[in-house]
Amino acid sequence: MRVDIGNALAGVASPGVARESLERLDARVAQAHRRIEAGRADEEHGYAALNLPERTDPDAIRRAVDPLADASAVLTAGIGGSALGAATITAALPTGADAYYLDNVDPAWVADRLDDLPLSETALVAVSRSGTTAETLANFLVCREAFERAGVDWTERTLVLTGDDGPLADLAERHDLPTLPVPEGVPGRFSALSPVGLAAPAICGVDIEGLLAGGAAGAESLAGSLFDCPAYAYGAVSYALAERGAAVNAMMPYAESLETFAEWFAQLWAESLGKDDIGQTPARALGATDQHSQLQLYRAGPRDKLVTFVAPGEREDRAIPDPDAEALSYLSGTSLGELLDTELDATAASLAAAGRPSVRIELDRVDARGLGELLYGMEAACILVGELFGVDAFDQPAVEWGKEATRESLRTGDLPERPGDELAE
Amino acid sequence: MRVDIGNALAGVASPGVARESLERLDARVAQAHRRIEAGRADEEHGYAALNLPERTDPDAIRRAVDPLADASAVLTAGIGGSALGAATITAALPTGADAYYLDNVDPAWVADRLDDLPLSETALVAVSRSGTTAETLANFLVCREAFERAGVDWTERTLVLTGDDGPLADLAERHDLPTLPVPEGVPGRFSALSPVGLAAPAICGVDIEGLLAGGAAGAESLAGSLFDCPAYAYGAVSYALAERGAAVNAMMPYAESLETFAEWFAQLWAESLGKDDIGQTPARALGATDQHSQLQLYRAGPRDKLVTFVAPGEREDRAIPDPDAEALSYLSGTSLGELLDTELDATAASLAAAGRPSVRIELDRVDARGLGELLYGMEAACILVGELFGVDAFDQPAVEWGKEATRESLRTGDLPERPGDELAE
Repeated sequence: MRVDIGNALAGVASPGVARESLERLDARVAQAHRRIEAGRADEEHGYAALNLPERTDPDAIRRAVDPLADASAVLTAGIGGSALGAATITAALPTGADAYYLDNVDPAWVADRLDDLPLSETALVAVSRSGTTAETLANFLVCREAFERAGVDWTERTLVLTGDDGPLADLAERHDLPTLPVPEGVPGRFSALSPVGLAAPAICGVDIEGLLAGGAAGAESLAGSLFDCPAYAYGAVSYALAERGAAVNAMMPYAESLETFAEWFAQLWAESLGKDDIGQTPARALGATDQHSQLQLYRAGPRDKLVTFVAPGEREDRAIPDPDAEALSYLSGTSLGELLDTELDATAASLAAAGRPSVRIELDRVDARGLGELLYGMEAACILVGELFGVDAFDQPAVEWGKEATRESLRTGDLPERPGDELAE
Repeated sequence: MRVDIGNALAGVASPGVARESLERLDARVAQAHRRIEAGRADEEHGYAALNLPERTDPDAIRRAVDPLADASAVLTAGIGGSALGAATITAALPTGADAYYLDNVDPAWVADRLDDLPLSETALVAVSRSGTTAETLANFLVCREAFERAGVDWTERTLVLTGDDGPLADLAERHDLPTLPVPEGVPGRFSALSPVGLAAPAICGVDIEGLLAGGAAGAESLAGSLFDCPAYAYGAVSYALAERGAAVNAMMPYAESLETFAEWFAQLWAESLGKDDIGQTPARALGATDQHSQLQLYRAGPRDKLVTFVAPGEREDRAIPDPDAEALSYLSGTSLGELLDTELDATAASLAAAGRPSVRIELDRVDARGLGELLYGMEAACILVGELFGVDAFDQPAVEWGKEATRESLRTGDLPERPGDELAE
C-alpha cells in the first residue's frame, strides 16, 4: 500500500496542508505512535485490534467452519461491525459460495432472501458480541424458523460468533453448535481481521491466510513518522485537512469490488471519530460511477472535502471493441481497464486543477494480501486520527439512547421521554 | 407524501430554524414558486422536468418495449442520470424480470455480469443523451460483442434511448432498432419520470402508469407556500438548515427497497446544488442498518447535519418467533416491521434528545404511486433549493474538465495540463 499525498498539499489545494505543517505534526504522530504501541503491548481495549493479524488463528477458523464447507450460500445475521468486515471481504475477493448479509430488519427483504436461498445448502452465521443485538437476534429467530419450515435441521447449518455469555452463547451450548470467539477488547468495526470478519469468507473459500498476511504486512509498516508509514500518512493528512475545513472525507475506490469497502470505511470513520461535536463525515463514493453523480459537488461545491481515491495497480481487463463512429475514435484500441484508470487520473487532475484536495491510496491489486493490508492500514490511520483529535476511537456511546428507547417502546408500547435512567448524558 | 419538520425547528435542534424565520422565508418560496411555474409554462430547460408526469406517454413506452417483453433480464448501459432513475424504480417496486445496470467500466465486474446473464433472454437498453458518454458507449460495445459471441442477434434485443443525433442515434437508424426519446430540456438526474427512467422498468413489468400518477399528484400539490406544499416544506427547511450550518443532508430511508433511492437523491442534490462553492453534501444512509454505522456521528459528531428519514406507513410484515431467552423478552409478540418502525421513531427521538435536526418524509407505502410522488417531490424540493441558493440547478459544468482530459489522454497517451482550450474556467 502506497499513499500519495501530493494533491493534498497547500499550493495545490485549499484546504491543503503545508509541508512544514506536516513536519510539525509529525512530532505528534510520533507521540501517538508510542501511545498506540503501548496499547498494543498491553492488549488494551481497541488498540488490541492492531494485533489481530498475529493473534487470529486461521486454522481454528478453518476447523470451525469445516462442517459447513459444502455450503453453496452463506447467510450472515449481523449488523454494523458484525457484518461489514466479512461483507467487504466477500465482495472484494473470489468466493466459491454466495455470501448474503442480513444487516437490516426490513420484513419483505428478509423474506425474499430466505425464499430465494436453497436452505439445505445454506450456512447460517449468527454474529453478535452481546448475543442481544435486537436486529440480529430477530433475524436469527426468523431464519431458524425458515430452516425448520423447510425441513432443514438448523443446528447442523449454524455457526455462532458471540461472547462468553448471553442468549446466543446459551443457545450454542444448548444445541452444541460450532462457535468461534469474538476477539476480546476489539470493537466490531475493528474486527475484520478476526473470526468476526473471516468466518463467513472462510466458508466461502476465501484466502483468509492471505488477508492475515496482508494485515501483518500493515503491522510491519507502522513506524513513528508519517513520512515512513503510509497508514499514518493517510491519517495525519486526513486529520490536518479536517482541521483546515475538510469536514467530509469522500472514500472513492476505483473498483466495483471495493464498493462495500467504502461502506466499511464509512462505519470505521464515523463511529470511531464522530464524538464530542467533532469528527470527519465519511461519504461513500465509487469511481467512475460517481463522476456522473458526486464529482460536480466535489469539484465546485463547498471547500469542505477531502477525496480519497483507492487505485489498484493491476486488474483483469477487457478490450473495448472498435467503435465504428468518428466521435468515439478515442476509444479505439483501448480497454475498460485503461478507460477506468485514465478516468481516475483525469478526475484527480481535475480536482487539483480546481484546487480541491485528494489523496491516492495505491494497491498492487485487489487480492487477499492487498485487501488485508488496506483494512489494517485504514484501521491504523483511524486510530491515529482518534489520538490526534483526542477522542476515544473505540466507543460509541451516542447510539445507546436509541437502543434502549427501542427496547422500552417494544415492551411498553410507548416511546420513553428519556429512556433508561442509567443513561446519563 | 407528508413532511414533518417539527424536529428541525429551533428549540428542538441546533442547527434549527425558528418558525418565524420560516414565515419570512415563505415570501421567497412564493417568489421561487412563481419562477418555477413560469419555467414550467415555457417548458424552459430544467423546469420542464416538473411537467414530465403529464408529458410522458406511457403507451409509447409500452409499445417501444413490447418486442422485449419476453426478457427475463434487462441490462441497462447507462451512467449517472441515465441509470439511477430506472435503478431506483426497479429496486423499489416488484418486477417480473431482473434488472441490472452497467453504470461503471470495471472490467471484471462487467465481464461477470455478462457471463452470468442468459443473453438470449436479456434485453439491452442503451441510454445516453449525447450518444458519446465514454463509459456507456464502451460498455455498449462490449455488450454487443458478448451478444454476438453468444450467437444472439443483438439488434433483436436492443432498445436505444438517445437524442436526435450522435453515434447511438446513427446506430439505431442503421440497424432499425426501437428507440425512445430522451426528454428535451430535462437533465438526466431529473428524468426518472420520462422514458429514461421508465423504459427498463416497463420491460420488467413495473406499473409505470402508477409512477406517473404519483408524479401527477406531486405536481398537483405544488403551491406558493411551504406551509401548503410538502415538497417545498422539505426544500425550504433543507435550505434554511444549510444556511445555519447543516452542510450535510443524510438521506436515510427505513426500507431496503429505497436504498437506491438514497443514491438517486444523492446525485440530484449533489449535482444540482454543488456549485459556486456552495451546496449541501448528500450522505446516503439506510435505516436501521446505519444506526450501527453512522448514527454515532450523526448524534454526537459535528453539528453540521440534517438527517432526512423516509418512512413508509404500511409494509408487508413478518412475525418474530418467540425468543426463549429472558434478555430478548421485549421481542415477544412483535414483528420485523414493528421493530423497524420502532427503531425509526427511537432514532428520530434520540437525535432530537441530542438537539440534532431531522425531517420525516412519510409515504403511505412504497408502491408505484408513492414512489412517483416521492421522486417528483424531491425534484421540486431540489429546484426550490436551487432558486433559494441562487444557483442553476440544471447544469453540471465542473465535470467537463475530467471528461475532456480522459478523451485527450486516451487519444495522446498523456494527461493534458489543461484539457480543451474551449474549457475556460
